[in-house]
Amino acid sequence: MSIERIELSELGEFGLINHLTKNIELQNASSIVGVGDDAAVIDHFGKQTVVTSDLLLEGVHFDLMYTPLKHLGYKSVVVNLSDVYAMNAIPTQIIVSIGISNRFGLEALNEFYEGIYAACNAYGVDLVGGDTTTSQKGFVISVTALGEVAPDKFVKRSTAQKGDLLCVSGDLGAPYIGLLFLEREKKIFLESPGVQPDLEQETYVIGRILKPEARKDIIEFFAEQEILPTAMMDISDGLSSEILHICKNSGLGCVLYEDKIPIAEETRKAAFKFEIDPTACALSGGEEYELVFTVSQKDYEKIAANNQISIVGYMTAQEEGAHIITKGGSTHSITAQGWNHLK
Amino acid sequence: MSIERIELSELGEFGLINHLTKNIELQNASSIVGVGDDAAVIDHFGKQTVVTSDLLLEGVHFDLMYTPLKHLGYKSVVVNLSDVYAMNAIPTQIIVSIGISNRFGLEALNEFYEGIYAACNAYGVDLVGGDTTTSQKGFVISVTALGEVAPDKFVKRSTAQKGDLLCVSGDLGAPYIGLLFLEREKKIFLESPGVQPDLEQETYVIGRILKPEARKDIIEFFAEQEILPTAMMDISDGLSSEILHICKNSGLGCVLYEDKIPIAEETRKAAFKFEIDPTACALSGGEEYELVFTVSQKDYEKIAANNQISIVGYMTAQEEGAHIITKGGSTHSITAQGWNHLK
Repeated sequence: MSIERIELSELGEFGLINHLTKNIELQNASSIVGVGDDAAVIDHFGKQTVVTSDLLLEGVHFDLMYTPLKHLGYKSVVVNLSDVYAMNAIPTQIIVSIGISNRFGLEALNEFYEGIYAACNAYGVDLVGGDTTTSQKGFVISVTALGEVAPDKFVKRSTAQKGDLLCVSGDLGAPYIGLLFLEREKKIFLESPGVQPDLEQETYVIGRILKPEARKDIIEFFAEQEILPTAMMDISDGLSSEILHICKNSGLGCVLYEDKIPIAEETRKAAFKFEIDPTACALSGGEEYELVFTVSQKDYEKIAANNQISIVGYMTAQEEGAHIITKGGSTHSITAQGWNHLK
Repeated sequence: MSIERIELSELGEFGLINHLTKNIELQNASSIVGVGDDAAVIDHFGKQTVVTSDLLLEGVHFDLMYTPLKHLGYKSVVVNLSDVYAMNAIPTQIIVSIGISNRFGLEALNEFYEGIYAACNAYGVDLVGGDTTTSQKGFVISVTALGEVAPDKFVKRSTAQKGDLLCVSGDLGAPYIGLLFLEREKKIFLESPGVQPDLEQETYVIGRILKPEARKDIIEFFAEQEILPTAMMDISDGLSSEILHICKNSGLGCVLYEDKIPIAEETRKAAFKFEIDPTACALSGGEEYELVFTVSQKDYEKIAANNQISIVGYMTAQEEGAHIITKGGSTHSITAQGWNHLK
């Protein structure tokens, strides 16, 4: 505890909000009224507004023992922006509400908001409002993101077509392995507090769980190349789970090829240390914030030219079911074993 | 616990969301995509979008011992709609995210959502999204509300003018007294569980704390009468606190007359039982969800004709300060002693 520690109760709710928001400079012309009134006012100039909200709870979605607060602030924003991009929209504003216990000092909150503002800058969005309250039990974060999209350009989950290519961005499985490392080191630390964690080899997978990025670049690529995906989602609960959503909502089946699923070399090596199958991590791990989407076959060449996109299968008729073809050539039904926070 | 109790873990997150949202019928033409995708899509057809969010935490904002879940659902929506009305806007969509502990059964959640839907119907708004997660510690509710307003019609806190009339809707002080009764009965119950609470005399003040309404009617009245308030807020932290916000943000002072503050006869009687001053309840109590606003003197006759609006004072120059003139004729500075959840 530093000498300069300021108790939040001294600042009061309004003092705290003023402190945390005093340096905001609105970046988007659509942000008409920002922080400091009953509500924000936004003008999307003939475009449609996209809105999404996520609730992040200490002990459920994050563990403050190994999550730096700046990373947590950044990630809280990114997971919401990812949902906006998954509609093929551009995020423009966020609202951040927090519930904090009195064990939080002002320095801790400043760190958290540094992460919030870093994400705002990286993605060009404005913080336009929020609610700050005390929490008796744990840190509570609620982020709402707004975005804009032309009326004929938003992409739902339910509009994939038979024969469409099934694609994913980036590589998968890393966040799950990263979390395994963090949980293992936490356990070791709790048992033997003197032992220094050795995570230097694992910066890739740990970076993916602590500081994920949303795929702004992929949405920009679609716009440049005039590609309109037929269906799209972001991967928060695991590839299997998301693919099954697209199949169910679009009334289709699919074929997914195990050997086409993109997995980074770092992820394979890290999975080997835990003696787990990297494909299982890619299928059932979550918090990837990559995009899974379907495109018409006519877009094959454009898609194939982007090394950040992998074509992993194709859509079939519903009665054919949703299947994965393994490297060995056998066929299995895809089952959802994604991260389910209610389990 | 009823025999039919269904464990939430059996349903899973997606089953639960499907269950809770299966009967939604979107009411607003602007609701393009609702629940069931990464984000909702909204088209406000040339109007500006108003957005606000509130976080409600068990043990801080509500006590499940005396708060029926249906009322809690209703109130969670109303407190957000009140912020939209306070911008002189019409609410159109809400997003509801909840964190629930495993002691909650499906019946309990159904009750909560009955209240959510009752508020949606009463105010003509659509539930278009949300997030459902487990909570290790207490019930967490996050509601985001969107609304629409013509670009030249939104009303901020910072634009009151010297000489404007200071007005409030409805009557004040009741929610605070209602809460005192509920807290007293809870204490009696905990000490002597056999004693039946006797709250029948206090239905008015208890109704005001458990099931507040937002002042849709006042915003409609403004539109009909072509009144554009010069500044407006809703009263969530107490009249004193909100008036000081308007003064500070508008760079003004004010004079408030104690004898003009509207207090219901039921509230006066109930305050008498607790031997507290009803004016203090009206000034410093919170959770009123009435509107406090300023209007130009030219609107005096229109405002005076509405028996749901009281003119309680007027705006002065900043250097004159913010004062209340008591019934006895003495003058005091207005101080903010509203509900501050960080204290």
